[in-house]
Amino acid sequence: MYYLVIRQFARTLKNLDAILEKAQRHAETKKFDVNNFCTARLAPDMLSFLFQVRIACDQAKSTAALLAGKEPPVHEDTEKTVEELRGRVAKCLAYLDTFTEKDFEKTSPQLKIKLPRQGKSLYADEYLFGRQIPNFFFHVTTAYDLLRQGGVEIGKSDFIGHLHLVDG
Amino acid sequence: MYYLVIRQFARTLKNLDAILEKAQRHAETKKFDVNNFCTARLAPDMLSFLFQVRIACDQAKSTAALLAGKEPPVHEDTEKTVEELRGRVAKCLAYLDTFTEKDFEKTSPQLKIKLPRQGKSLYADEYLFGRQIPNFFFHVTTAYDLLRQGGVEIGKSDFIGHLHLVDG
Repeated sequence: MYYLVIRQFARTLKNLDAILEKAQRHAETKKFDVNNFCTARLAPDMLSFLFQVRIACDQAKSTAALLAGKEPPVHEDTEKTVEELRGRVAKCLAYLDTFTEKDFEKTSPQLKIKLPRQGKSLYADEYLFGRQIPNFFFHVTTAYDLLRQGGVEIGKSDFIGHLHLVDG
Repeated sequence: MYYLVIRQFARTLKNLDAILEKAQRHAETKKFDVNNFCTARLAPDMLSFLFQVRIACDQAKSTAALLAGKEPPVHEDTEKTVEELRGRVAKCLAYLDTFTEKDFEKTSPQLKIKLPRQGKSLYADEYLFGRQIPNFFFHVTTAYDLLRQGGVEIGKSDFIGHLHLVDG
């Protein structure tokens, strides 16, 4: 189940990457600099688009690492362009791809995940369902919403991506 | 695990209800009609705030019902005010509260969930992780983003709500 969630994070990040590519194509067509999106915010005291994408990546990366008892790699916050953000997503996806179901075999709901800032911990399922899944989708959605509000032609199907439909 | 997700949906909807209440208090203080939010949209061709809240509720309701092999109740789309939307959330929460872990004991990953519009099905885990979880959080986040952009003083902690921190 933990592995399933990590695979879903990876799928959603792949969808986000395709959305970022659509933003690039949209800006080309409309002849504006796509990097104008990087500093876009829904409210002046909200985090910018750059941070929404970075944090989404970091949530996915940390979730995989900490549930598997590993140290998450540090990805420096140096991106200034949409192309660099796509690089950040790619780096995160490459990291997520190193995980297999086996990495989570020993992960039990009794595993405590430390939150250094709070000096406290969360049990694995509370960490995953209560904190990481809502957080991850919060940031991907807000990134999507910023592009959508900015005129990029994307819809829910870009956010959800391809589903494995079966007969019956 | 299925039950855990349904409990998380319920927690997130409770957080959304508290956010709606904050919007009401904000509007009172600023002396404007809180129901002005109901028709707010991030883009003119996106669904309005009313629909974001309704769909979030419906995603939660259907997920619980279909994974437990039940028929989801019909909640008519008649709300026109924030107070009525809070009623919709309450109705959904009351429905989610009827579920226990036992309802999902027989739910296997091989369960096929029918998508009537597509005339196809999804296996339970694909339905849950690939479609319902992303969709649910998409709509709650977009509702949050609309209020946040509209000046309501809410932050990520309102979205995440209370976490069960433990020592260690």
